[in-house]
Amino acid sequence: GSLDHSYSLTTGTTSAELLKKLNEQRDIIALMEVKMKEMKSTIRQLKVTEAKLKEEVRERDRMLSAPVVRKKI
Amino acid sequence: GSLDHSYSLTTGTTSAELLKKLNEQRDIIALMEVKMKEMKSTIRQLKVTEAKLKEEVRERDRMLSAPVVRKKI
Repeated sequence: GSLDHSYSLTTGTTSAELLKKLNEQRDIIALMEVKMKEMKSTIRQLKVTEAKLKEEVRERDRMLSAPVVRKKI
Repeated sequence: GSLDHSYSLTTGTTSAELLKKLNEQRDIIALMEVKMKEMKSTIRQLKVTEAKLKEEVRERDRMLSAPVVRKKI
């Protein structure tokens, strides 16, 4: 993507410019860390939901395979 | 975390050092992008699984609420 090549001194970039880029990248990393934390939380939540749903399916399968018991009227 | 403060010129860092940091950050960002793509794929997969499991629960609920029909022997 946009991050394929290394920065090099050959472009004659000043220290101030390098510093600016450094701080921009630091901000990008901070934003990505926040985003990754959100995604981790989403994954954790989805796995909890998956486990609950699997248990619900199992519960219904038990009910479906149990002998039919009818209430006496 | 470790990204709380801005880099500044007051430390007398050389351009070569700044460039080294810049490339290190770029590598970190590239790794984080890979990780985020993996997580997005995991989330997508978990959502597909969730939808399937919900449909399985609905299907069993329909079976449980349907009148009991017995095969003639």
